[in-house]
Amino acid sequence: MPLDRSTLLPALKNVATRLRIDSVKSTSEAGSGHPTSCCSAAELMAALFFAEMRFDPKDPHNTESDRFVLSKGHAAPILYSAWAEAGAFDRSELLKLRQIGSDLEGHPTPRLPFVDVATGSLGQGICAAVGCALNARRIKSPYRTYVLLGDGESAEGSVWEAADVASMDKLDNLCGLTDVNALGQSRATMWQHDMEQFSRRWRAFGWHAIVVDGHDLNQILDALAEARQTTGQPTMILARTIKGKGVSFTEGKDGWHGRAFKKGEELDRALAELEQQFVPVPAGGNDLNLAHHIPKPQSAPRAEPAPKRVAPPAYKLGDQVATREAYGAAIAKLGEADQRVVALDADVKNSTFSEKFEHALPDRFYENFIAEQVMIGAAMGLAARGAIPFPSTFACFLSRAADFVRMAAISNVNVKLAGSHAGVSIGEDGPSQMALEDLAMCRAQPNCAVLYPSDAVSTERLVAAAAYHPGPAYIRTSRPKTPVIYGNDESFEVGGLKVVRESRDDVATVVGAGVTLFEALKAFDRLKASGTFIRVIDLYSLQPIDRESLVAAGRATGGRIVTVEDHYAAGGIGDAVAEAVAGSGITVTRLAVREIPRSGKPDELLDRFGISAAHIVEAVGSFRSQKLEVRR
Amino acid sequence: MPLDRSTLLPALKNVATRLRIDSVKSTSEAGSGHPTSCCSAAELMAALFFAEMRFDPKDPHNTESDRFVLSKGHAAPILYSAWAEAGAFDRSELLKLRQIGSDLEGHPTPRLPFVDVATGSLGQGICAAVGCALNARRIKSPYRTYVLLGDGESAEGSVWEAADVASMDKLDNLCGLTDVNALGQSRATMWQHDMEQFSRRWRAFGWHAIVVDGHDLNQILDALAEARQTTGQPTMILARTIKGKGVSFTEGKDGWHGRAFKKGEELDRALAELEQQFVPVPAGGNDLNLAHHIPKPQSAPRAEPAPKRVAPPAYKLGDQVATREAYGAAIAKLGEADQRVVALDADVKNSTFSEKFEHALPDRFYENFIAEQVMIGAAMGLAARGAIPFPSTFACFLSRAADFVRMAAISNVNVKLAGSHAGVSIGEDGPSQMALEDLAMCRAQPNCAVLYPSDAVSTERLVAAAAYHPGPAYIRTSRPKTPVIYGNDESFEVGGLKVVRESRDDVATVVGAGVTLFEALKAFDRLKASGTFIRVIDLYSLQPIDRESLVAAGRATGGRIVTVEDHYAAGGIGDAVAEAVAGSGITVTRLAVREIPRSGKPDELLDRFGISAAHIVEAVGSFRSQKLEVRR
Repeated sequence: MPLDRSTLLPALKNVATRLRIDSVKSTSEAGSGHPTSCCSAAELMAALFFAEMRFDPKDPHNTESDRFVLSKGHAAPILYSAWAEAGAFDRSELLKLRQIGSDLEGHPTPRLPFVDVATGSLGQGICAAVGCALNARRIKSPYRTYVLLGDGESAEGSVWEAADVASMDKLDNLCGLTDVNALGQSRATMWQHDMEQFSRRWRAFGWHAIVVDGHDLNQILDALAEARQTTGQPTMILARTIKGKGVSFTEGKDGWHGRAFKKGEELDRALAELEQQFVPVPAGGNDLNLAHHIPKPQSAPRAEPAPKRVAPPAYKLGDQVATREAYGAAIAKLGEADQRVVALDADVKNSTFSEKFEHALPDRFYENFIAEQVMIGAAMGLAARGAIPFPSTFACFLSRAADFVRMAAISNVNVKLAGSHAGVSIGEDGPSQMALEDLAMCRAQPNCAVLYPSDAVSTERLVAAAAYHPGPAYIRTSRPKTPVIYGNDESFEVGGLKVVRESRDDVATVVGAGVTLFEALKAFDRLKASGTFIRVIDLYSLQPIDRESLVAAGRATGGRIVTVEDHYAAGGIGDAVAEAVAGSGITVTRLAVREIPRSGKPDELLDRFGISAAHIVEAVGSFRSQKLEVRR
Repeated sequence: MPLDRSTLLPALKNVATRLRIDSVKSTSEAGSGHPTSCCSAAELMAALFFAEMRFDPKDPHNTESDRFVLSKGHAAPILYSAWAEAGAFDRSELLKLRQIGSDLEGHPTPRLPFVDVATGSLGQGICAAVGCALNARRIKSPYRTYVLLGDGESAEGSVWEAADVASMDKLDNLCGLTDVNALGQSRATMWQHDMEQFSRRWRAFGWHAIVVDGHDLNQILDALAEARQTTGQPTMILARTIKGKGVSFTEGKDGWHGRAFKKGEELDRALAELEQQFVPVPAGGNDLNLAHHIPKPQSAPRAEPAPKRVAPPAYKLGDQVATREAYGAAIAKLGEADQRVVALDADVKNSTFSEKFEHALPDRFYENFIAEQVMIGAAMGLAARGAIPFPSTFACFLSRAADFVRMAAISNVNVKLAGSHAGVSIGEDGPSQMALEDLAMCRAQPNCAVLYPSDAVSTERLVAAAAYHPGPAYIRTSRPKTPVIYGNDESFEVGGLKVVRESRDDVATVVGAGVTLFEALKAFDRLKASGTFIRVIDLYSLQPIDRESLVAAGRATGGRIVTVEDHYAAGGIGDAVAEAVAGSGITVTRLAVREIPRSGKPDELLDRFGISAAHIVEAVGSFRSQKLEVRR
């Protein structure tokens, strides 16, 4: 039975006071953190957790629980306090905030079971919340998603990408709250307390916007109820708040951002003021524990149906198929077998071929228009709630969401990035459309699998391997058609490679992937014609990498490896191979794009920028002459 | 004398027809490109170039010329046609579009003198245009900046970051035009021809918005005049257009995005239709060449005042100064001496210490609030117009603008990125605030200098070196205070390094930078105590890199190099050094962060993640035992 407001309001007020006290105490104990950014949000958090959301504090992963994303991640202490107050863990843990032995980190990460995605890079949480809300549709659950933003955060473009996608998708199961405390890190925010600036923006972007006094629990509860009853559009509650609220000497004051109270007089004074703010709860409600009144989810947790068996690839050796096209076919096939698989795109579905997925499974295809940040952010939210999302765009435009890739890695979510149109081999469109740093971006993240198929069969196999590899993965595909070189029963695994040419006479190992594998094969043919043999490796998995096989190949071929990649020299295949064989005495010669490229025909560009068969022949030739010299 | 509209309108209409014909012909000749995206913008381009902008077609770099940025970069052919029509080069060049020997690339790059920044990654041009408009203020020039966007492009969050900054900065010298042709690449755009969706967004973001029929030259000219007369806010002209306008079988049709007309019947039909659209110009105006009526800039080109001499650093050996703080002091000092130097920040000026610049030179400090994309984009525009911009934020949040960094490299503009709070040494804030892939991001760009100072003196010297190094540069600074180890007269150059410890007995070379240099020095002391000597190198320039000195050091120390970096293993110091010494027989052992880190104290984290002095000692120790083994 819902509590009467005459009881609920003072009880919530006391929760808000406890959340403030916890936030102040824990940051002082840690010696750093953002107590004042917590204090502005205390009533919002109290209302959400103890009078609005349906969830089971003991089972935060429950598929039917309402979701809460703290987009303003620096307010982590109040998030932790709210979960402690709800009974998820013992309140004494809060004082371990920011210690190396505690999962209560400076900003929330999914090391904590009640955190879906890591936040702390502003403007990302709302994108993930869009994904959580889309997931409710996918699993047909009535759960709602709430997201708390900061006002300063609203300057991030990704917030407006999320706003557009959420209103376009009519996500009325999504409710945002903006804590408009008017003070950023270094100065007053752009719009300070001009609430009209906020509401006109959100309304323009198609949201239902409600302005409230963010310290008035009655107004907050009314707004949350209004949001719940709003259909066909998401709601943004714009809460006018005071930064540092509750501690007189910080309220609305500059210079307190990201500053913990000094233990001793400063902290004591703050706590004394806060302790004064407890209020009596009428009708014997002083012992009332709101945690016991949190409504459970409306339905029982559900398991995803087991994936069906997927038929092996059905390509014909020699067929010309671009890996990007094979990618589209592969995700569609996988999606038919596994309802967790979803696809997202950013208005290039006819180039990435994710349109094949859309045609087969329109309900699980999410068009984000030209907005890569919300695409990856939504994928993070979907993944956090059990989906296996494949967001795709031109590989170069994934860099638009590089910070989201970083946070996806910190979150260790199952986001399977797909980037098409790798490298100079795209040709005439020119450098702005060529991904030449995508391998570096993804390989930098230590837990991101980096896959780079060369033909249709390996693409299909690697898409499936990526889907079931835990954590983030990246699949790089190419624009040009390439021949199918693998049989349909060939297996490919994350961390593997294929030796595609080998003999006892090999003078060097040439390592390629994607289009450069075919340049290596051309080089093999030319060298063979002059009696020279090379080993050719298809390095379809850059990370993890098959160190042993690379070292074995290098040692078997005179300690010589030539890498060749349609990517800049730093961070890609050359660097990956060089680190893998480090200490083995093998020499790695790197062929890569070493200057800003330009428009031209694909073959012209491969040659001009040093990664064609001719350059491989030349690199191997230089080894041959060394060998001859040694022999002389 | 301005032309009468009765003459001007038909003359402009004929220009628009010629621009369409050129766009259609050149893309057909190239066999690829976006003729229909050009056709929708023909009247907008004709009006801008031949009835609005003041510029000298023969001197596109003129400091006083109005600027035009083609944010929808895929419409490059019509840009080239407009400049040919204006007389900048011979029209016959247009048929070399997209050929490897021509600078008329698939998307515009500054290889062409009339292109300020490369476009083709959507949502960036408007950010650069903000920078061009800010530059007019810097040099006190009346020139105006125009930027043409696509409607699909407006989904990019960066567009709204630019919108906020431009209205906040009251940039009434900036005029945007959105070509609302309702069709994206893969489908209809989010808002199609619902012009109200556009105007309410731009108005909400504080712009003056004008809706016009984008094929009605009269309306366009009126809107441009209105924009010119609007003060205190930028103007966005929202032009309802038809994609493929002028060719009946493509007008408003899906399936024509990014498709050239097939030579032969298809092209002939298109051209025949377009040729029919020439109209007579009254009063003998058929020979009228509007190029001769383009108004020249209002003032003569101006030279920037020569920079004054900068005093050497004035630090004291042993003083504890964080490099981020030295960075702030250095840009302020440089800015006093050189009026081209400007600083931008994203609401962390009190952490990056760019606030020191703001205090000294408030007129050349641009606050972008929490919006990293427009910050870097504006820096690109400023740099393109002669400024030397230093945009700063936490290094991890530069990744928010990774795609802008990519385009800045393609543009080869003098943007000097500054990222503070590198690595796990920031401590308790946790992984979301730790930059561990920034070196990989910047080093991937072949023309980006990557600098990483360790103390205050080297920071100050490297800030100056970066400022005058042509092209993009990145300066990585750290949060903790570190001692000043260099004398004030020490010199540092892009591409250099410092050997800070050396003896004839060195058993290995340890290469660090930033905080890890001090770990290396601690390791030196510990090893020395047990009679082992190491060479210690401060690799303050990762790119370009001093290959010769690294090889020499490695060879002089038993062929052993240990790299240690507060960065993930891929793409940073280890990879840079390994590539530099490749083929020399030197073994590189890499100490780097190899898993997602967590909150904790800086020293705890350096140790836990394998990059502390103890780990260096251990790595060197393993060499020693190898050596002993060999000797036995």
